[in-house]
Amino acid sequence: MRIGIDIGGTKIAVGLISESGQVTKRRKVKTDAHKGYPGVRDQIRGLVAALLSEAGAGATDVGRIGIACAGQIDHATGKILFSPNLNWTDAPLKHDVEEATGIQTFIENDVNAGTYGEWRFGFHREASNVVGIFIGTGVGGGLILNGRLFRGSHGVGGELGHTTLNPFGYQCRCGNRGCFEAYCGGSYIEERVRQRLMQGYRGKLWDIVEGRAGSVHVGRIEEAYLLGDDLCTEIWGEVVEYLGAGLQSVANLINPDLIIFGGGVVKGTQRLIDEALLVMKRRAMRASIAGLKIERARLGDDATLLGAAFVKDE
Amino acid sequence: MRIGIDIGGTKIAVGLISESGQVTKRRKVKTDAHKGYPGVRDQIRGLVAALLSEAGAGATDVGRIGIACAGQIDHATGKILFSPNLNWTDAPLKHDVEEATGIQTFIENDVNAGTYGEWRFGFHREASNVVGIFIGTGVGGGLILNGRLFRGSHGVGGELGHTTLNPFGYQCRCGNRGCFEAYCGGSYIEERVRQRLMQGYRGKLWDIVEGRAGSVHVGRIEEAYLLGDDLCTEIWGEVVEYLGAGLQSVANLINPDLIIFGGGVVKGTQRLIDEALLVMKRRAMRASIAGLKIERARLGDDATLLGAAFVKDE
Repeated sequence: MRIGIDIGGTKIAVGLISESGQVTKRRKVKTDAHKGYPGVRDQIRGLVAALLSEAGAGATDVGRIGIACAGQIDHATGKILFSPNLNWTDAPLKHDVEEATGIQTFIENDVNAGTYGEWRFGFHREASNVVGIFIGTGVGGGLILNGRLFRGSHGVGGELGHTTLNPFGYQCRCGNRGCFEAYCGGSYIEERVRQRLMQGYRGKLWDIVEGRAGSVHVGRIEEAYLLGDDLCTEIWGEVVEYLGAGLQSVANLINPDLIIFGGGVVKGTQRLIDEALLVMKRRAMRASIAGLKIERARLGDDATLLGAAFVKDE
Repeated sequence: MRIGIDIGGTKIAVGLISESGQVTKRRKVKTDAHKGYPGVRDQIRGLVAALLSEAGAGATDVGRIGIACAGQIDHATGKILFSPNLNWTDAPLKHDVEEATGIQTFIENDVNAGTYGEWRFGFHREASNVVGIFIGTGVGGGLILNGRLFRGSHGVGGELGHTTLNPFGYQCRCGNRGCFEAYCGGSYIEERVRQRLMQGYRGKLWDIVEGRAGSVHVGRIEEAYLLGDDLCTEIWGEVVEYLGAGLQSVANLINPDLIIFGGGVVKGTQRLIDEALLVMKRRAMRASIAGLKIERARLGDDATLLGAAFVKDE
């Protein structure tokens, strides 16, 4: 069996996984992010011990611990070079977990792990060139190319969220302007709408959120757009055009046979992806999207656990 | 030995190539484009025969004919699905050349062939993830990923020139707005400058081209920019920002270890690439460009002949 771990900024998910990819036990706890890297490292050690004890198993029963984490991973050393949401730099996670548990440990970027998990266990490797796009508060991307997870030369490839859709566009938290994420990430979209409410915009959205700007989320923006709210129609249209252009770009560059959409914004909206796909089809070269399948992620949070536990160290 | 052929809209180049990659004989003729596909097909047959006769060789001495052509290739059949500059559709080039010559023939997209040729013979495969960017009248892109030419799922991947740098930007000849090519392709840049001259703009550029808008080319735009011409400073700055953003996008997505720049605009300017690289470095994630080498193409037109003759049919 294997253990998959997904370290997020707010929660850590852990799963015990059979060699055939069944998650047989799960745990989820709040991340002790305020204790810094040493605190979270100790939390992981405790979670592994608890999971093994619950399963009546020992370290020698586990072939691998796979850990997914946002940020840039140095695969040669298993160090997390930089994790923006945990604010870690050069964290020697592989070394520390192996020392603490005696179990071989592998570290992977969370979106890479999620893309690999969906591809292998959700889609049974049915495509050989796959783009995973996860739209939540931000936008994450993962690439399967020629049937393998593609990491680029230094392990940091696939950063679709920080490709540029307009060099003079919206400010992104990465420091640049006009990133895919700055146009299509849920937190960015919501922030733009909230600002307009704060500036006095009143319309159907205002009624839907009952006058609380803090209650704005993408699902409610869609609801108001469908009711004809002017602000939401404007902002929704912009997101759709930029998302469609971003999809067209990656289709023209990669010529994938499958795009998998996941993340909270994808789950929380009905029409966003469909409308953006119409833009993509209008814009993309016909040959680039011939035979292209579009699917929603099938495994939810398990994709990341499974991907971390099984992704190959190539 | 092998034969490499590069079919362009205006010229056809042919080369006899040794198994070690030396081009031993070359010919270049005007493309009989006005005669359509059958005319050009007959031209190719004649060129192959003339080359063999000159070398005192027969068809059985040649292991392969490799043909590079702009456009979308169906590798399964060796058909050219669509070639924009020759205006061919579904041209069965592999079949026809094999039938006419008795020599095994392989068809490849010209930018893919050029990228592969540079990587293999100009750079001796020294990097495993390579982006080839060829800026001439348009912008072409080729990808070497994990040490292999990457074609995507239907053979049309790598279309960097038609990724989007601004969904509401300049009109591109592909029908879209805001393509990389529409911002950075030489013919587009020159056209924007020419229009302003036609609208009455007068400045240092006007003196440099001696009042002939038709004499504007990118090298002269650079010259006028360096002399402080307002129009050229404005347009040059825009090209640099967009080119830099396009480089940053592909660096963040692919995390390459080598970018090879080629094409007439790259050769015809002194500072364009260097200035765009400064923008790329300012914008890209540090880890994405760590260890990234930037080089100019080394083989000129031979890269395409060599690539066509040697690229693998994987």
